[in-house]
Amino acid sequence: MVPKDVGEEVGGLKTLTATGTSVLVEGRLEATPEGTKQAVELKATKILHVGPCDAATYPIAKKKTSYEFLREKMHLRPRANTIGAVARIRNALAFATHRFFQENGFLYVHTPIITASDCEGAGEMFQVTTLLGKMKEYADVPTVSLEQLEALKAELAAQGEAVKAAKAVRPASKAEVDKLLKLKEEFAKAEESSRIVGGIKRLPDGTPDYKDDFFSKPAYLTVSGQLQGEFYACALSNIYTFGPTFRAEYSFTARHLAEFWMIEPEMAFCDLKDDMQCAEDYVRYCCKYLLDNCQTDLEFINKMVDNTAIARLQQVAHTPFKRVSYTEAIDLLKDVVARGVKKFEYNVEWGIDLQTEHERYLTEEIFKQPVIVYNYPKEIKAFYMRLNEDGKTVAAMDVLVPKVGELIGGSQREDRLDVLEKRIEEGGMDIAAYEGYLDLRRYGTVPHSGFGLGFERLILFATGLDNIREVIPFPRWPGNAAY
Amino acid sequence: MVPKDVGEEVGGLKTLTATGTSVLVEGRLEATPEGTKQAVELKATKILHVGPCDAATYPIAKKKTSYEFLREKMHLRPRANTIGAVARIRNALAFATHRFFQENGFLYVHTPIITASDCEGAGEMFQVTTLLGKMKEYADVPTVSLEQLEALKAELAAQGEAVKAAKAVRPASKAEVDKLLKLKEEFAKAEESSRIVGGIKRLPDGTPDYKDDFFSKPAYLTVSGQLQGEFYACALSNIYTFGPTFRAEYSFTARHLAEFWMIEPEMAFCDLKDDMQCAEDYVRYCCKYLLDNCQTDLEFINKMVDNTAIARLQQVAHTPFKRVSYTEAIDLLKDVVARGVKKFEYNVEWGIDLQTEHERYLTEEIFKQPVIVYNYPKEIKAFYMRLNEDGKTVAAMDVLVPKVGELIGGSQREDRLDVLEKRIEEGGMDIAAYEGYLDLRRYGTVPHSGFGLGFERLILFATGLDNIREVIPFPRWPGNAAY
Repeated sequence: MVPKDVGEEVGGLKTLTATGTSVLVEGRLEATPEGTKQAVELKATKILHVGPCDAATYPIAKKKTSYEFLREKMHLRPRANTIGAVARIRNALAFATHRFFQENGFLYVHTPIITASDCEGAGEMFQVTTLLGKMKEYADVPTVSLEQLEALKAELAAQGEAVKAAKAVRPASKAEVDKLLKLKEEFAKAEESSRIVGGIKRLPDGTPDYKDDFFSKPAYLTVSGQLQGEFYACALSNIYTFGPTFRAEYSFTARHLAEFWMIEPEMAFCDLKDDMQCAEDYVRYCCKYLLDNCQTDLEFINKMVDNTAIARLQQVAHTPFKRVSYTEAIDLLKDVVARGVKKFEYNVEWGIDLQTEHERYLTEEIFKQPVIVYNYPKEIKAFYMRLNEDGKTVAAMDVLVPKVGELIGGSQREDRLDVLEKRIEEGGMDIAAYEGYLDLRRYGTVPHSGFGLGFERLILFATGLDNIREVIPFPRWPGNAAY
Repeated sequence: MVPKDVGEEVGGLKTLTATGTSVLVEGRLEATPEGTKQAVELKATKILHVGPCDAATYPIAKKKTSYEFLREKMHLRPRANTIGAVARIRNALAFATHRFFQENGFLYVHTPIITASDCEGAGEMFQVTTLLGKMKEYADVPTVSLEQLEALKAELAAQGEAVKAAKAVRPASKAEVDKLLKLKEEFAKAEESSRIVGGIKRLPDGTPDYKDDFFSKPAYLTVSGQLQGEFYACALSNIYTFGPTFRAEYSFTARHLAEFWMIEPEMAFCDLKDDMQCAEDYVRYCCKYLLDNCQTDLEFINKMVDNTAIARLQQVAHTPFKRVSYTEAIDLLKDVVARGVKKFEYNVEWGIDLQTEHERYLTEEIFKQPVIVYNYPKEIKAFYMRLNEDGKTVAAMDVLVPKVGELIGGSQREDRLDVLEKRIEEGGMDIAAYEGYLDLRRYGTVPHSGFGLGFERLILFATGLDNIREVIPFPRWPGNAAY
């Protein structure tokens, strides 16, 4: 409540009320009589600051704006109530993440963002380069054709021969030698120029000469910190990463971002069972933390976005996760299909990679709670996952949760040198690229496990929002990198 | 202590003792008699795991290895004692950072890593692109010369005329029209091919056609989250960022990295004085946290690396920072020079940008403790810093600490629309590029301030290590991005 005289000092009450106005007010906070809409009221005694806002031009002054429209006004977007609530929930989940791992003795490790290791299929990676920036620098370099280069080379050779011939009968003259040196220099310069095609220095096969790039070889944005996390876990025991990761996929879905944050713990002396327990403990800790620390925002979300959000968090916080092997999960799904209860777009049979429709059906319909599926067929999982005794499956696990499907993917890592080498060979991969990884098995190998969680998926799970672009402050997808 | 029979079960005691061997042991932890070197001893009753290590080939088996050598064995580097201690100190400082800001009501905001805004001088930025990856895709596209293109164009035009002429007297035949359509298609294809030079699609001026790139325009790695932090602070009050930032500088010094982590708080309704107080509180909190939580590692560092490390942390934890204006600082330095006490490489006079030698002299010699220098000449500081009443200085501040020099740089931001617009114009910058930034001042402007701290500098300060490459898990500098 602003008394009239207090408002008049800053130009009248009207200057204070337009949407978007910022004010700093001094006053007394008082309880309002019971039954009133608000619990407290601020009785203003002084206005310390007014940042006016012209409602006629303010882009988000309207009461209802769509998420799409807000994404076009990225710099004002956090002023929208839902985005603000999401920002606070995101903050709470980030701090809960650090708290959980710190309380359990994990070290936070900053794995690199720029990486020259290309273990993960470079097709989906963004390249980090200074080559395109050098185009300007090379713009003034004269173009040299192959013919010109050949001509210069011939001239250089001829002069070389001439000097040699002269030397056979007398000391070569200064003019002869100077001409040779000048030609040499000219040729070197021309040779260098001829290698610049389209503003980029090239190798003979036309590909860029990466010696000219910042890191002297191709460099990319990381898709995972697992490799580097294993280096640290095998030296210092339990560690976790929490940092940005990247995918250069041309994907426009509501579930994909080109830049997102990932959490990847990696634990020494840890098998798949411990790994599953850690994943469960972590997710349940996050749910509890949110319920304890973000009540107002969760109530807002529950009212405006998804009226099952709080119930979902409560259930996950209080119920141990179910666990089923991949084989059991397939049997359950096949049974549902056989009984005509459910039709899936993708066929269900042992050996398939579970699709989101299968994952969501398992967690939302069959178990009606989070479920961990473990021991997947080795053919559909990565080479570094530990081969089980059956020779058919690997010690991998996925945590599936209602609303999202797969929230976490993890595995025990193959710690046996010979088995790992064989799997790399079977996969047709270049074993030389994995020397560092193999060294971990050569020098004091340790059973170890880890998992990865896409942080934005956790926020989707907590808020019930449908589009992943709404749960990150500055979403990036093909064609979009505003600010 | 491993009894002989326990050791024999795993092949003898010798298998357990080589450097680099990993073991998992079950046993009883017992206090040793007073006066013994160790405080406790583990009496092994069972060996659960042995990961052997061949000392003959283990690259870091030697007792003393140089930091340089360790950097060549990046995947084994964290096994070195100093690097391990640094990793734990880094972890503690990271968590202290989150704790400090969370306890004070700041929101952790993930500002973007990939950014299309180029406000910060693109010369030092890494470019993020998929254009070079497309070279392969374009490798099979036939080269089309301008002559060929012109010829096709002429043929197309002629056929167009022919059809037009035919139409004037009779309906055009299918053959005539088909030929026209085919030529059109051929021309379009050839035109597209002709724009690919050196594997990259071009605009007429030869520069890359960024419509072809992932984000449809040039994108870069962030050099600071301040801009986006301001968007959030002006919506949700106090926020902080803690994420990776990048500089594509060809710098090989012990103080520079191409990839490093930065902490940037941004506070609404906050002036320079509050900003300085926050910076001081934060640094002192970190020192206290380290002293309380990393005693063993600090003692190791104090013994092996820098025997002033603990004393420095204690002093900073317990002493309020000094504050001097830039003008006072210059007077102090000039006086020292005038009295012949000290010679600087760089001349000291009002208007200069303080060099590291000046900064370190102020904090290490004159004040012998951390000092905050504020109100710098506007000419040497950024356009967005708030202009003071004197019209000559801006509300900027730097925190200087012993061992490192500048640890923090911050300022109150210019919140007055007209003043900010004038400063952008004076700086010869393109005002259109700052529309979002100006909108913050148009719609509910708020006095606000912030600062930035290079996280690795904080670790250098805490450990006394000389080279910044030792305090980040995977250092990146020109030519170096191993793993």
